[in-house]
Amino acid sequence: MKVLFIGDVVGSVGQEMVREYLPKLKSKYKPQATIVNGENAAGGRGITEKIYKEFLQNGVDAVTMGNHTWDQREIFDFIDDAKKLIRPANYPSSVGVPGKGIAYIKINQQELAVINLHGRVFMGDFEDPFQIGMKLVEEAKKRTPHILIDFHGEATSEKEAMGWYMDGHASAVLGTHTHVQTNDQRILPSGTGYMSDVGMTGFYDGILGMKREAIINKFLTQLPARFEVPDNGRKKLNGCFIEFDNVTGKTKIIESIRIDDDTPFYD
Amino acid sequence: MKVLFIGDVVGSVGQEMVREYLPKLKSKYKPQATIVNGENAAGGRGITEKIYKEFLQNGVDAVTMGNHTWDQREIFDFIDDAKKLIRPANYPSSVGVPGKGIAYIKINQQELAVINLHGRVFMGDFEDPFQIGMKLVEEAKKRTPHILIDFHGEATSEKEAMGWYMDGHASAVLGTHTHVQTNDQRILPSGTGYMSDVGMTGFYDGILGMKREAIINKFLTQLPARFEVPDNGRKKLNGCFIEFDNVTGKTKIIESIRIDDDTPFYD
Amino acid sequence: MKVLFIGDVVGSVGQEMVREYLPKLKSKYKPQATIVNGENAAGGRGITEKIYKEFLQNGVDAVTMGNHTWDQREIFDFIDDAKKLIRPANYPSSVGVPGKGIAYIKINQQELAVINLHGRVFMGDFEDPFQIGMKLVEEAKKRTPHILIDFHGEATSEKEAMGWYMDGHASAVLGTHTHVQTNDQRILPSGTGYMSDVGMTGFYDGILGMKREAIINKFLTQLPARFEVPDNGRKKLNGCFIEFDNVTGKTKIIESIRIDDDTPFYD
Amino acid sequence: MKVLFIGDVVGSVGQEMVREYLPKLKSKYKPQATIVNGENAAGGRGITEKIYKEFLQNGVDAVTMGNHTWDQREIFDFIDDAKKLIRPANYPSSVGVPGKGIAYIKINQQELAVINLHGRVFMGDFEDPFQIGMKLVEEAKKRTPHILIDFHGEATSEKEAMGWYMDGHASAVLGTHTHVQTNDQRILPSGTGYMSDVGMTGFYDGILGMKREAIINKFLTQLPARFEVPDNGRKKLNGCFIEFDNVTGKTKIIESIRIDDDTPFYD
Ligand SMILES: [Fe+2]
Ligand SMILES: [Fe+2]
Ligand SMILES: [Fe+2]
Ligand SMILES: [Fe+2]
Ligand SMILES: [Fe+2]
Ligand SMILES: [Fe+2]
Ligand SMILES: [Fe+2]
Ligand SMILES: [Fe+2]
Repeated sequence: MKVLFIGDVVGSVGQEMVREYLPKLKSKYKPQATIVNGENAAGGRGITEKIYKEFLQNGVDAVTMGNHTWDQREIFDFIDDAKKLIRPANYPSSVGVPGKGIAYIKINQQELAVINLHGRVFMGDFEDPFQIGMKLVEEAKKRTPHILIDFHGEATSEKEAMGWYMDGHASAVLGTHTHVQTNDQRILPSGTGYMSDVGMTGFYDGILGMKREAIINKFLTQLPARFEVPDNGRKKLNGCFIEFDNVTGKTKIIESIRIDDDTPFYD
Repeated sequence: MKVLFIGDVVGSVGQEMVREYLPKLKSKYKPQATIVNGENAAGGRGITEKIYKEFLQNGVDAVTMGNHTWDQREIFDFIDDAKKLIRPANYPSSVGVPGKGIAYIKINQQELAVINLHGRVFMGDFEDPFQIGMKLVEEAKKRTPHILIDFHGEATSEKEAMGWYMDGHASAVLGTHTHVQTNDQRILPSGTGYMSDVGMTGFYDGILGMKREAIINKFLTQLPARFEVPDNGRKKLNGCFIEFDNVTGKTKIIESIRIDDDTPFYD
Repeated sequence: MKVLFIGDVVGSVGQEMVREYLPKLKSKYKPQATIVNGENAAGGRGITEKIYKEFLQNGVDAVTMGNHTWDQREIFDFIDDAKKLIRPANYPSSVGVPGKGIAYIKINQQELAVINLHGRVFMGDFEDPFQIGMKLVEEAKKRTPHILIDFHGEATSEKEAMGWYMDGHASAVLGTHTHVQTNDQRILPSGTGYMSDVGMTGFYDGILGMKREAIINKFLTQLPARFEVPDNGRKKLNGCFIEFDNVTGKTKIIESIRIDDDTPFYD
Repeated sequence: MKVLFIGDVVGSVGQEMVREYLPKLKSKYKPQATIVNGENAAGGRGITEKIYKEFLQNGVDAVTMGNHTWDQREIFDFIDDAKKLIRPANYPSSVGVPGKGIAYIKINQQELAVINLHGRVFMGDFEDPFQIGMKLVEEAKKRTPHILIDFHGEATSEKEAMGWYMDGHASAVLGTHTHVQTNDQRILPSGTGYMSDVGMTGFYDGILGMKREAIINKFLTQLPARFEVPDNGRKKLNGCFIEFDNVTGKTKIIESIRIDDDTPFYD
């Protein structure tokens, strides 16, 4: 099973990159499933129903989220009807948090389970992503050997720990959130594909995809700043191509995708 | 001017990788200066005088540090005599913190200024690395156009902000500390070479170069754990090759170096 | 010199408490100067020019701030004209942050210097409050022996450290920010009055002065919440009365003030 | 039911205060149960079996802990046999963390349930103290109406939220950890006694009970420091006396106890 994963899509420039390159990437990699992290799609903050539906229309099969899940108020209205929208699973389970942390994508006779987990180090007080993650993996295992985790986290220690903890259990652990692609893609000894962060998709000449002046000014003055995604500018796409063994679900190939003016796309 | 930078060397396995590959890397890239980040060289925690001197004997020209600078008590005894040991510059300046945050490497008729800065986001209460960093760059500019900054930080926002802030001022801003190499090396529009994190050098099958069982156990139990570097095992080296224009000091080439069993060294 | 200090005034209910009790407190304690921390006066977030002026009309001599200083956009328009509004002094000094961190209150032939400092532990990347604070104290010493510091901080370690560091230098170090009054008021050996936190003034049956349902819900669900000050309800006032020796500026008396339904005001 | 609670006992000077004043406090308040927080009893870091047993011999009925629970290696050897030692309940439950988070003290025909919970804000990645806490309260309710929670936390928001969340469920929520007594003891509307922090017991002229020079130096230099409890010096005791209705378990009286040279003990 071949899967394409596109890292945090930031604002309309990020959406444009998905529209422009998804056909080319599909033609190059022939993925049977495409996942994007959409937590920053709506101007950097969350996602709207309109954007979510456009992703699906443009050929995306599932959209994962992260710490920005709830930034747009309307998410509370549509998340429970959005079957392919996956928010971090490790919210408290007994208090009525809307949405879900796992979804299944049908691919011919097979299924791909997609799980979203939230890191805790430097991030907030969520339920234990290791314990919740492993429970979901065991649950998914009953349906399919193909299980992909988007681990939305800040600290490399927590991300690497998740990769090794899931080695031999999940097909892949792909990190998101830092908006910077890492160069550590590999297949762990028991067959789990791993990469600390897939990176981001959007404005190439910004800071985490946002206009850089306001952010630099905040670092210099410590005054509050409004972070904004520019309407245009040079763009980049960060992602990952991964192939799982059809029978075992283990990763056979993991490759990073980096498209920008310094590393242009080639077929 | 050609410079080789090797990311956080962790423990004796990390030192072995430096001994083994430094000759090969020198032969491949012909650097005129070699810098290693040595904050984890002594069993993961700090550096000793012995290790520092071995680095120099093995062909290293300068050793940068980070949050682990003071882990070995003996550092207080030798740091002021260690001319090529550079600790983060943004410690309070008026209270007698030993060591220095900038050093100059002589290369024929030229000099390379090496600056070490400490990030603050998720890290601690240091002086402003932006302000202190720019002051040092301006000071160094009076001697040489070749200025390399090792920015030891956690948050990608702070690191990218530093890169853009220094664009056109420093020759290069190379990140360290996360122990994971990033895949975002580039030359910013005004000529500064940038990479969010160079990565680490040491145990390949660990978490940040440490034995993984104790770390995973800590995440699962929240109990304290002793983190240790293994005595042997598969190893990796992470680094960066960078070339500055001899006259302007601007970056002409920046290339990441990743050596491990999945991406072996080639000449 | 007798001084009355009122802790973080939260919203309109907090302002009402100041209006209602300030005359009674003045009549009881006969302070020559009254200071309120006003960082939460505007509905919990920052301060407006109107509220600032009302404080002065109601008999307040100086208004200190904290991490909420910049919450109301209009602060940028009036802070430089508001002579008795004091924001934390330890913002970066060379980058044009508006406002000031010290002000002087004239009392007959004498002056009271009021300094506002921001803590860093758990709070943000400000300049060193110890170093900046001592510089301001030394500067103020040239004009007056009466120097009061509002140290706006979270961590008790940092607050106690500031108290002891300033012992014999400032007349008093009074903490704010936690919104909970501490029971540790004392005179340190060299004459500095100290109290870790003066507490807050506003809604008595809330959490830090805000409606409690939204905050409890946030702890239970980890979902974002909008924190609001109620329009009415039972109220409290927290403050501190302190008297400095007229010649030396050393603290002679420090007394906490707690007014609420469980501990009513008495003359 | 009358209960005496003594806040974080720090080092041998703290133990001495307990030995000296416990008889006097018992004689004054006639408590039927005495609880001390012992997380800092062993030189500031954790507790030993010897100290634990001495507490019991000196008339303590239960010892609660906190973030320093595991500082002394030997805790792992004796905690499971120490029936009256209670560590925070919200460690992960399914991974074999030793010790327990609740204990029952027999008092004639009645029982007092003592629960220890760990805060998360600014503290670490524990299980949800609200959810785990309420489960334990409901479990305890089956045996007794007298339920006391030691909530070991940093942030006043989290502590006040816990108080209000438990109002009408637990008999009392008493905070520990900041080492500074708060002046907000009260009975919440549904009968739960509340106090944000009971304070600490030990060295009066230190910072959080530790020698102050090293801590101030750390704030000034950002260099690592070894924190130590002095062998002697002026001492203080912080605690709380609380009385529950014998039938309903609701709090009838809550009074803070502060003993030091500035506020001496009186019968
Ligand atoms: Fe993101
Ligand atoms: Fe994120
Ligand atoms: Fe490191
Ligand atoms: Fe580091
Ligand atoms: Fe406040
Ligand atoms: Fe505040
Ligand atoms: Fe403690
Ligand atoms: Fe504690």
